[in-house]
Amino acid sequence: MSNKIRLGILGGGGDSLIGVLHRVASTMYDRYQLVGGSFNPSLDESIKFANQIGISTNQVYKDLDTLIEKELALPADQRMEVVSILTPNFLHFPMAKKLLENGFNVICEKPMTTTYEEAKTLHEILKKSNTVFAVTYTYTGYPMVRQMRQMIANGEIGKIQKIDAQYYQGWINPIIHDKAQRKSTWRLDPEKSGISCCIGDIGTHAFNMVEYMSGLKVNSILADLNYLYDDNQMDIDGTVLIHCDNDVKGVIRASQIATGEENNFTVQIYGDKAGLKWEQENPNYLYLLEDGHPLRVLKPGHAYNNDLSLDGTKLPPGHPEGIFDSMGNIYKGVARAIRNETYDQAEFPTMIDGVRGMNFIEKAVESHKAGNVWVEIDKQ
Amino acid sequence: MSNKIRLGILGGGGDSLIGVLHRVASTMYDRYQLVGGSFNPSLDESIKFANQIGISTNQVYKDLDTLIEKELALPADQRMEVVSILTPNFLHFPMAKKLLENGFNVICEKPMTTTYEEAKTLHEILKKSNTVFAVTYTYTGYPMVRQMRQMIANGEIGKIQKIDAQYYQGWINPIIHDKAQRKSTWRLDPEKSGISCCIGDIGTHAFNMVEYMSGLKVNSILADLNYLYDDNQMDIDGTVLIHCDNDVKGVIRASQIATGEENNFTVQIYGDKAGLKWEQENPNYLYLLEDGHPLRVLKPGHAYNNDLSLDGTKLPPGHPEGIFDSMGNIYKGVARAIRNETYDQAEFPTMIDGVRGMNFIEKAVESHKAGNVWVEIDKQ
Amino acid sequence: MSNKIRLGILGGGGDSLIGVLHRVASTMYDRYQLVGGSFNPSLDESIKFANQIGISTNQVYKDLDTLIEKELALPADQRMEVVSILTPNFLHFPMAKKLLENGFNVICEKPMTTTYEEAKTLHEILKKSNTVFAVTYTYTGYPMVRQMRQMIANGEIGKIQKIDAQYYQGWINPIIHDKAQRKSTWRLDPEKSGISCCIGDIGTHAFNMVEYMSGLKVNSILADLNYLYDDNQMDIDGTVLIHCDNDVKGVIRASQIATGEENNFTVQIYGDKAGLKWEQENPNYLYLLEDGHPLRVLKPGHAYNNDLSLDGTKLPPGHPEGIFDSMGNIYKGVARAIRNETYDQAEFPTMIDGVRGMNFIEKAVESHKAGNVWVEIDKQ
Amino acid sequence: MSNKIRLGILGGGGDSLIGVLHRVASTMYDRYQLVGGSFNPSLDESIKFANQIGISTNQVYKDLDTLIEKELALPADQRMEVVSILTPNFLHFPMAKKLLENGFNVICEKPMTTTYEEAKTLHEILKKSNTVFAVTYTYTGYPMVRQMRQMIANGEIGKIQKIDAQYYQGWINPIIHDKAQRKSTWRLDPEKSGISCCIGDIGTHAFNMVEYMSGLKVNSILADLNYLYDDNQMDIDGTVLIHCDNDVKGVIRASQIATGEENNFTVQIYGDKAGLKWEQENPNYLYLLEDGHPLRVLKPGHAYNNDLSLDGTKLPPGHPEGIFDSMGNIYKGVARAIRNETYDQAEFPTMIDGVRGMNFIEKAVESHKAGNVWVEIDKQ
Repeated sequence: MSNKIRLGILGGGGDSLIGVLHRVASTMYDRYQLVGGSFNPSLDESIKFANQIGISTNQVYKDLDTLIEKELALPADQRMEVVSILTPNFLHFPMAKKLLENGFNVICEKPMTTTYEEAKTLHEILKKSNTVFAVTYTYTGYPMVRQMRQMIANGEIGKIQKIDAQYYQGWINPIIHDKAQRKSTWRLDPEKSGISCCIGDIGTHAFNMVEYMSGLKVNSILADLNYLYDDNQMDIDGTVLIHCDNDVKGVIRASQIATGEENNFTVQIYGDKAGLKWEQENPNYLYLLEDGHPLRVLKPGHAYNNDLSLDGTKLPPGHPEGIFDSMGNIYKGVARAIRNETYDQAEFPTMIDGVRGMNFIEKAVESHKAGNVWVEIDKQ
Repeated sequence: MSNKIRLGILGGGGDSLIGVLHRVASTMYDRYQLVGGSFNPSLDESIKFANQIGISTNQVYKDLDTLIEKELALPADQRMEVVSILTPNFLHFPMAKKLLENGFNVICEKPMTTTYEEAKTLHEILKKSNTVFAVTYTYTGYPMVRQMRQMIANGEIGKIQKIDAQYYQGWINPIIHDKAQRKSTWRLDPEKSGISCCIGDIGTHAFNMVEYMSGLKVNSILADLNYLYDDNQMDIDGTVLIHCDNDVKGVIRASQIATGEENNFTVQIYGDKAGLKWEQENPNYLYLLEDGHPLRVLKPGHAYNNDLSLDGTKLPPGHPEGIFDSMGNIYKGVARAIRNETYDQAEFPTMIDGVRGMNFIEKAVESHKAGNVWVEIDKQ
Repeated sequence: MSNKIRLGILGGGGDSLIGVLHRVASTMYDRYQLVGGSFNPSLDESIKFANQIGISTNQVYKDLDTLIEKELALPADQRMEVVSILTPNFLHFPMAKKLLENGFNVICEKPMTTTYEEAKTLHEILKKSNTVFAVTYTYTGYPMVRQMRQMIANGEIGKIQKIDAQYYQGWINPIIHDKAQRKSTWRLDPEKSGISCCIGDIGTHAFNMVEYMSGLKVNSILADLNYLYDDNQMDIDGTVLIHCDNDVKGVIRASQIATGEENNFTVQIYGDKAGLKWEQENPNYLYLLEDGHPLRVLKPGHAYNNDLSLDGTKLPPGHPEGIFDSMGNIYKGVARAIRNETYDQAEFPTMIDGVRGMNFIEKAVESHKAGNVWVEIDKQ
Repeated sequence: MSNKIRLGILGGGGDSLIGVLHRVASTMYDRYQLVGGSFNPSLDESIKFANQIGISTNQVYKDLDTLIEKELALPADQRMEVVSILTPNFLHFPMAKKLLENGFNVICEKPMTTTYEEAKTLHEILKKSNTVFAVTYTYTGYPMVRQMRQMIANGEIGKIQKIDAQYYQGWINPIIHDKAQRKSTWRLDPEKSGISCCIGDIGTHAFNMVEYMSGLKVNSILADLNYLYDDNQMDIDGTVLIHCDNDVKGVIRASQIATGEENNFTVQIYGDKAGLKWEQENPNYLYLLEDGHPLRVLKPGHAYNNDLSLDGTKLPPGHPEGIFDSMGNIYKGVARAIRNETYDQAEFPTMIDGVRGMNFIEKAVESHKAGNVWVEIDKQ
């Protein structure tokens, strides 16, 4: 039988983007099989969605308690082994707690909990269990992020002496300046989102990445946050001075009012031998700066990459990972044609393209061999 | 029952990259279910591989003839609906021919055939069948490629007056200069690869893209190919002048001796109102040039994108599509931990990261509220 | 007679780069005539240098006192009108003071003085005089810096809500880690360089630019500086939180230990309508970010530029200003040939290049008109 | 006396950009002294202009014949040594001819002549004279162009195997599509501009650069030019296949209908060891591509640069050459203030900026030393 890991999912139904992301990710290396879950608060919706994605009705549970009860009743080698939690933030803690207490491995979307207190509680439970727990700070999976971590760990930039991380977005700009909107957005409501908006949502990404890449711990911080309006209770921008292990100083800058920015997340770490920079919006490039040498631009999939990076690369050099999505779009177009929904030449290359392509090749060789003369391409 | 399309695959077994690409792509929009195929020349290998990826042994066929025979014996609503051909190039034609003649839809890797003659034959068969046939010129699936096509179709750059496509690689450089290697590489053997190496492999991509994006047909060409050595029978570089519909002139440039280039595939199309440029290695950027206006850089997922582009975008602005792969890497790390292979903190964020993240948020707010003073991060 | 402004220079002799920079700058718009000065501490050296650059001996003064005495003795319409101070930093204050007190206009290199106290004294003197005084924070002269200032002043990005400036260099890295070197470098000696190294040298550039571009004043600051070694008395890195007019918050980041960085000076200013970014190392590009619009990249010399920017642009679009230097190099090569120093074909294009160029044009037309056939280029 | 070379200029009066370019270039290395010339067809205008730029009336000649006659009458050590020809194209040949025949060194703007025949004639004359002659293909003066030439000459990319040059502009687009304009533009009139527009104006730049950088000669060409309209007699776009020494193949692409392009001039040369790329619009970057190595980005002024490149660099790393122009703008603003034309704070930094800068430095240190607390910046 298949040795795939039996995966369950909580949340992520309907057209949830995060649901697609986790499902596709789970197929990437042929290690998981999605066996069931609870995808929507409504059981009917959940079943409908499950069927759409090829999960049969009996694998859909009305809630987490039912899931746990039913799965625990199964023999261990048929039981769900890991559960991904993609539900709204306030459910992360209770769900993760229950799963850990019942021996399930957990993959949990960020933020892991809504308070530090909850986080510590969860950690205590994890220590007593014998399970694997992951928080999906997704960016740490990029090949060049791993390359950067490993290069630093290998001493390739020497002793770290300066850290600078930026995560700038502009999305809250149209909301924050409208009194009605800033009152009604759940992101700006402490009841729903905890004590922080900007630092909580993206500052943590930067914080996590700084520790991941540098291998250093941040020991103390000094923050200047920005709320813009007196009636706004949640930070939407902030600069945080950081002091790390080995007296390394640095800064984390996060903003949701950097108008026009999308996800401009960059990390710069400088050592006494060299510096490294990475930018999330161009994740395949890693910049290596060294005194007296030309700037070097590292890319994934090369023999010069380290093991940790290569382990995260499926494609040969020069192919952005987005080609998976490009191929996915072609498959989608074909699906539509097969199901007689649409048959749009713009959505996938048809045989005419194949025919013309072959003709082009033969004619190019013919033109060349005839002494570089014009030849006609056949009409199709 | 699931309304998913039943997909079979020929080839792509073992650690074939193209196999991964097609399987992952087929999951992206939850439209396909992989139900079987023939993944390796050896049936044993094929079964072993199939089991690894969750396909049961009875869905593995020893060859295409068996596949067709067995599937045709099934009721129509249980039968494989579409077959992806990922086998070596010389098998594309006979396999596609047989599948079409038996009523299967086909997704075929490029090159579609090894000769133009075969391509035309296949086309005749397709015309008589009632099936869908796609050739995977994958790049046409990129959101910004689609954006460019649709903008041109909408007249946003006016009447086209100049076309320039480049596909430069350097991979054959270490081979071509070594007499033994250039004699033994299958790519340079006309018996195995047809009449062209460079134009056949990547020139066709450029040709297809030019026609896809511009909406024009190339009508005549003049080629100057490059073989570098007298004992080399296959072009490894070439420049092709093109004349298209409406007297539009242009050039397609392809090379495998552009040392150090990876997949530097770019297309520039200029109209009488504006110009557009796209580069495969940075596929999320589309450059719009207009006299008297600042350069504009379009990205996917925005309200300003056209429908064809948005249909190919799953993510919000500012997230490169490679984030799927990044998340895939995290899932891989978790799988290893669950299976007790490795438990490497570098491979996925653990609960410690989650705990520290929550602590960071609360401390940042505390520092700010205390008047921007230093506060300690807890040790974990 | 020429209406050019009579310019004197203090310092900048020998192969001083700053001397070249000021002399060339003074010729750019045909507004100045260099009439004399005191270029070196040694009068002999000063005369020798003056003669080399076309200044006659009687226009060279042994020191500033002599200069002032002699020039004041001249009729007003023959007198030096403005004096550029290019001497070591500690001389800026006494020289500027004396010049202002004697009615000369002054162009002073930065830093203007070595202490704030001196700066205030100088300001008091200036207020009583009727002269023009400029400090050469050179970067404010870039066309796209001016474009950015004016766009902000015009309200094109709306109300400013976030400011971020970075000036990262790595040059002190090889010095700071060597105990002997960090003891002996004048930049790290408070006696010679005042109380600050990094903030004093480059932090001020960022501070000045923030105020220049934004039109806002910085009202309070909180600094975290970095000295790296206990025996080092001067900051070589620092992050400065800033609070500006209208409660605008921001950050200035400066470093001389950002290993491998050259002059990575960037300014990002975000308003409630749009954001703008400028980078010193690519000074011809200005990035305009606006929610829901493609990124726009503005360049100099276009009709869409504002007056302040266009006033600072001599060249048509698409020509980096460095072309002046490129032409300067060609002139240098010609000078060497004329003076029989070297006659290097690499240093300037010779007539052979001109002949071949004309041949190329005629042959290209001939090839085309003959139906796109090969034609030979003549041997020269 | 000054050992500067006595320079005369023909043309370039009024607000001629090319005049400014040559005058400033001649000052860059303190090797030339502009001593006179004939700047305008009208003597009055010429004198007026000369006076403005500091040339006295008696150094202005009504025409070239007068210039030659009067200068030859002077003792050799007072005579004009070199003359720059900046007049309209059709005058280049007769003027250069006369100057050479009379023993003057010549710096001639491109195109050197209007026909190949003239060019050959001129060359014959030059061979018999003992003078220096330069054609200002300005781009060859860029430090990174020189770096690229020298690296290739040194064998750093191995044996050249592929050349690709592009010079794309869009400026003729608004003209070419308007029948009246395309009839009346001198650039499109063979009487005034010779037999070619695009190839003649910019194709030659690419041709010259290819030979300059590669060290190879182009031996034969095949051109496909583009006229767009039947009533247009001059090419405004073209692709030229080239065959060079050592059987190297390549392509030169030039266009004036690449809508929205400014001066997108790029050269890519690939050898069997590595490849090099340079782009005119970002002239300070040189890209070195090598199989199995990260892309390297070379910049000017580094110890790793070769002598030919360093000879063309005045500034330290990280300062674009445009800083000369930036400083020039500051000097212009000061000139206006001195002459009571305008006194605009936007045009140059004033003492207030200097005062605030000193205050910032002291306050930053104060904030840090007090334990990273907020301190006020003084109002000025």
